[in-house]
Amino acid sequence: MAPKYFTSLRPHLPLLVLLLETAFILVFFFFASYDAKNPPDLHLYPEFQDVHVMVFLGFGFLGTFLARYGFSSSGFNVLVAAMTAQWAVLMNGFLFAFGNRTIVVNLRSLLTANLCAVSAFVSMGVVLGKTSPIQLLLMALLEVSGFILNQWILLRFLEVDLTESIRQLHVFGTYFGVMFSWATYRPGLEPRHEKEKSDTKMDLFSMIGTLFLWMFWPSFNSVLIEDTAQKISAVYSTYFSLAASTVAAFGLSVLTSKKGKINMVHVHNATVAGGVAVGTAVTVIQAPWVAMTIGVIAGLTSTLGLQYIKPRMASLFQVHDTCGVQYVHGIPGILGVFANITIQLATNWTSFILTAKEAVFQLTALSVTAALSLILGLGTGYLLKWNFWKAPHDKKCFDDQAYWKFPHLAMKL
Amino acid sequence: MAPKYFTSLRPHLPLLVLLLETAFILVFFFFASYDAKNPPDLHLYPEFQDVHVMVFLGFGFLGTFLARYGFSSSGFNVLVAAMTAQWAVLMNGFLFAFGNRTIVVNLRSLLTANLCAVSAFVSMGVVLGKTSPIQLLLMALLEVSGFILNQWILLRFLEVDLTESIRQLHVFGTYFGVMFSWATYRPGLEPRHEKEKSDTKMDLFSMIGTLFLWMFWPSFNSVLIEDTAQKISAVYSTYFSLAASTVAAFGLSVLTSKKGKINMVHVHNATVAGGVAVGTAVTVIQAPWVAMTIGVIAGLTSTLGLQYIKPRMASLFQVHDTCGVQYVHGIPGILGVFANITIQLATNWTSFILTAKEAVFQLTALSVTAALSLILGLGTGYLLKWNFWKAPHDKKCFDDQAYWKFPHLAMKL
Amino acid sequence: MAPKYFTSLRPHLPLLVLLLETAFILVFFFFASYDAKNPPDLHLYPEFQDVHVMVFLGFGFLGTFLARYGFSSSGFNVLVAAMTAQWAVLMNGFLFAFGNRTIVVNLRSLLTANLCAVSAFVSMGVVLGKTSPIQLLLMALLEVSGFILNQWILLRFLEVDLTESIRQLHVFGTYFGVMFSWATYRPGLEPRHEKEKSDTKMDLFSMIGTLFLWMFWPSFNSVLIEDTAQKISAVYSTYFSLAASTVAAFGLSVLTSKKGKINMVHVHNATVAGGVAVGTAVTVIQAPWVAMTIGVIAGLTSTLGLQYIKPRMASLFQVHDTCGVQYVHGIPGILGVFANITIQLATNWTSFILTAKEAVFQLTALSVTAALSLILGLGTGYLLKWNFWKAPHDKKCFDDQAYWKFPHLAMKL
Repeated sequence: MAPKYFTSLRPHLPLLVLLLETAFILVFFFFASYDAKNPPDLHLYPEFQDVHVMVFLGFGFLGTFLARYGFSSSGFNVLVAAMTAQWAVLMNGFLFAFGNRTIVVNLRSLLTANLCAVSAFVSMGVVLGKTSPIQLLLMALLEVSGFILNQWILLRFLEVDLTESIRQLHVFGTYFGVMFSWATYRPGLEPRHEKEKSDTKMDLFSMIGTLFLWMFWPSFNSVLIEDTAQKISAVYSTYFSLAASTVAAFGLSVLTSKKGKINMVHVHNATVAGGVAVGTAVTVIQAPWVAMTIGVIAGLTSTLGLQYIKPRMASLFQVHDTCGVQYVHGIPGILGVFANITIQLATNWTSFILTAKEAVFQLTALSVTAALSLILGLGTGYLLKWNFWKAPHDKKCFDDQAYWKFPHLAMKL
Repeated sequence: MAPKYFTSLRPHLPLLVLLLETAFILVFFFFASYDAKNPPDLHLYPEFQDVHVMVFLGFGFLGTFLARYGFSSSGFNVLVAAMTAQWAVLMNGFLFAFGNRTIVVNLRSLLTANLCAVSAFVSMGVVLGKTSPIQLLLMALLEVSGFILNQWILLRFLEVDLTESIRQLHVFGTYFGVMFSWATYRPGLEPRHEKEKSDTKMDLFSMIGTLFLWMFWPSFNSVLIEDTAQKISAVYSTYFSLAASTVAAFGLSVLTSKKGKINMVHVHNATVAGGVAVGTAVTVIQAPWVAMTIGVIAGLTSTLGLQYIKPRMASLFQVHDTCGVQYVHGIPGILGVFANITIQLATNWTSFILTAKEAVFQLTALSVTAALSLILGLGTGYLLKWNFWKAPHDKKCFDDQAYWKFPHLAMKL
Repeated sequence: MAPKYFTSLRPHLPLLVLLLETAFILVFFFFASYDAKNPPDLHLYPEFQDVHVMVFLGFGFLGTFLARYGFSSSGFNVLVAAMTAQWAVLMNGFLFAFGNRTIVVNLRSLLTANLCAVSAFVSMGVVLGKTSPIQLLLMALLEVSGFILNQWILLRFLEVDLTESIRQLHVFGTYFGVMFSWATYRPGLEPRHEKEKSDTKMDLFSMIGTLFLWMFWPSFNSVLIEDTAQKISAVYSTYFSLAASTVAAFGLSVLTSKKGKINMVHVHNATVAGGVAVGTAVTVIQAPWVAMTIGVIAGLTSTLGLQYIKPRMASLFQVHDTCGVQYVHGIPGILGVFANITIQLATNWTSFILTAKEAVFQLTALSVTAALSLILGLGTGYLLKWNFWKAPHDKKCFDDQAYWKFPHLAMKL
């Protein structure tokens, strides 16, 4: 290996993570304790586990489609999840539940922390392969902070409750990541990096990620809802929306292919777009056909975006989006807000004024979220662009070799 | 790629799936709504998720053992599951729960729809690698219709309740698939297609499928049972039967090998035969030893079938069975019916006449199911044999290249 | 293949497993029946399934990192789990719950049997690649017997209850395996066997195993606890400890690498050391920072052990430990006992005498467990060293070819 490509993570990564972990322990020591209330929220546990699987396995393996980047996709995911979850428990506690100067840890707070970690994974999908683990970690921590700050602003100024605002994670994560990617744009990776490709077995690993996201998305969209009738409706709607977006994705994938073939990239991504889009509207959907319609639109939009917009974003806007996150989380997330508004207007047209007011509120919330994510993503991008953070050399992008011992060596010493 | 092998799915597949999805949405619009009853059946949710994982990941990955057919096995599985589940919700609703001219969607109806999708996956296992996604999809929809029709007949004329008749899915799926395979027999694939082979890594992907089926089979066999004592007994019986069939499969695999080696094909398939066989009898089994005995018999039969009958079926009967479905679902499914009858006769010999009458009923139900599946499978086979449905050219069987963009191309445009 | 390397499992394996299974069925016939109490312990089912996934998929796939040993790792795991679980139900029943001369089977007894199987998997990690399936099976059955005997001794003489003593499985499994490995030491495999290596895709399969262990470890540590407040605290503590040990493992992995790279071996193993270490102490931990501190220490210790001690164990002590079990289960397990004692001393220092007495009890229990595991492991090792048990030839170690049909052959007959 030529020395000029050589990137040691020493001493930055160990210092960073061990100091942070020590700091976390200290803050937890002074401020956090377990929820002693009895009976605890054990009934949430199975759904908590579903979300847990999405966070640690689903998102991690979704990213393994890159032929030479499987260790990083799955490995960095675990590291980032472990750190952001701890950090999110603290931030959420300080901002929203700091009664008696104590952060109370319970299943709900761990769950919320996991969901906050997802907002970071969304951004990680944009920059996958082009960043060092140090950059990923700092980006994730800053982003989760920004996301929770966004929740605080929405609560304070627009009275959007926390369960509602957490649904903005797809939009926030996407546009944070997009601006980060713009700020750290590397022309050397264009038009296409030789290592930015897949292979059949890696695509199957990625399929495992996709499927776990698909299967547990009903839990993801329903877990925070307390009213049981609304909760189970959210499960139904998510299920139907996912099914419909899967059908749409397969159909359009063939339609947009000159040779009439199916594109695995669409299957990995557009099939779950229905879960994202329906997410914001689950509490107002009253019938399966509505969820299915949203799912079809999400599946179509997502496939079209992946096929026609994604490849042009780099040359036109200098935004490179490795996983096509904008077409899976960004646009479907925005679609969901409009679906929500449309449904509310349609079902409450007798009290049109009230509903319109509600709609303006929701659009304002969306705009605030989008604006904040864009600004913070840009700032974070400039901050982490610095060479000090050990970004991989262009030639070592999309390549595990930059940061991982290789297996035949790993077993020796 | 020589043009003569070239198979474009355009415009058939997009037209088919998008029109069907639109039709589904319209029918749901007019006839379906969420169950508004409170409290909903949320307690079923963890087991619903287990079955969900079997449907979307278990069966999909079980089929990935073919060296060049992983995209199709896992991908077509998701597409077919998404469509048949929607279709089954409608058909079940119209035939069995059309009160107030409305189909009520709840967790139980989604669950039943998932189980109906499984009957289609069983048939898909027979024809895997030799059919286009269009054929698979149409076959699955027709089969699920046939299966639900079978349930209706059993209910109407033999008063077999729905929970009972849904257990016939293994037998129905197998013999539907077998006749479909017979009708679409392609001598060009014999004696063995060069691509009908496995490789070690694909076998491990397949193992993931097997294990998820194995692990969640207790949920599969118990989820529809309402009486909690019976339900938990079904969990125990399935567990013991699976364990016993695993042991039997390993033992016989070595015994039938000249070199005394274990055959991965047996491990993938015969280990779960115990789950199938015990399925029909779970409600009458009162002790673990009975479940274990059924498991051992299923494991032995399945391994023997895979080893000695499967390879001769093509030459003798012109039935090619890619996954050996007959020895995992078909024969064990029939075994289960006889086990059920034997147990009932043995435990109720004081009221022998009554039990014998019951036995005749059960055999009649089995015969009706077998007859209907054979007839409908044959008809569907002849219908879908037509070139119009884009079956792959002989040389492109068992090969993802026929219908999928390849990874290195997929990432470009 | 040269005949001298040829190892047929016939007739030993079929005879062994089929005779044992027959014996199991007979013993179950005479002594076991389902628990008829109503309502049954269905609320345990979701956590039962989590543990089930760890047992059948987690441990099996963790071992697939060996480049040429994936069939054996995942396949033998299923066989051993299926047999030991049946055996453990019987032994546990006879020793601890033999009321009315009947063993009552319920979800709790299946769960306990699964946990006993884990003690065998721990030992299997030590000897992976160097043993025949016959040796593995006999070792597992003898070990589980020894482990349950150990529980009986701890209960009888030290009044340690069963839920407590089952937590010793990590220590028992490790030192049983270590002594087994010492007794069956094969100098021919040193300094490093050419096949004892990984490859990138196998490491990803192994990552799937790691992640399922990681994700479901909170269930593993909490499932047997009956008090709901303690149970949910165990979930929280395990979660935080795992997160902290993950961070520590990544940090130290880079720090101990000359080139500043991450070692996948550490990620596979040290990230879950926190789950082991916290396991013994979960019922006394009252705050997240304690769990995190234990996790950090476990992650650091485990990484250091894997990096510096593991490679020297073979040459210094003639103990070859394939998966580095001692640094994932052994030392973290002992750490956990000391953590437990420390916490009890610290929180109950007003009643110091009483707590010190308790501490002596716990150390005695640990010593008894360690002593028994060392002795029984040694004895079992000498017993199974005999050529009759078909250990693989040195050249065929770490190689599926010794016992498995190979895929391209497997599909033919």
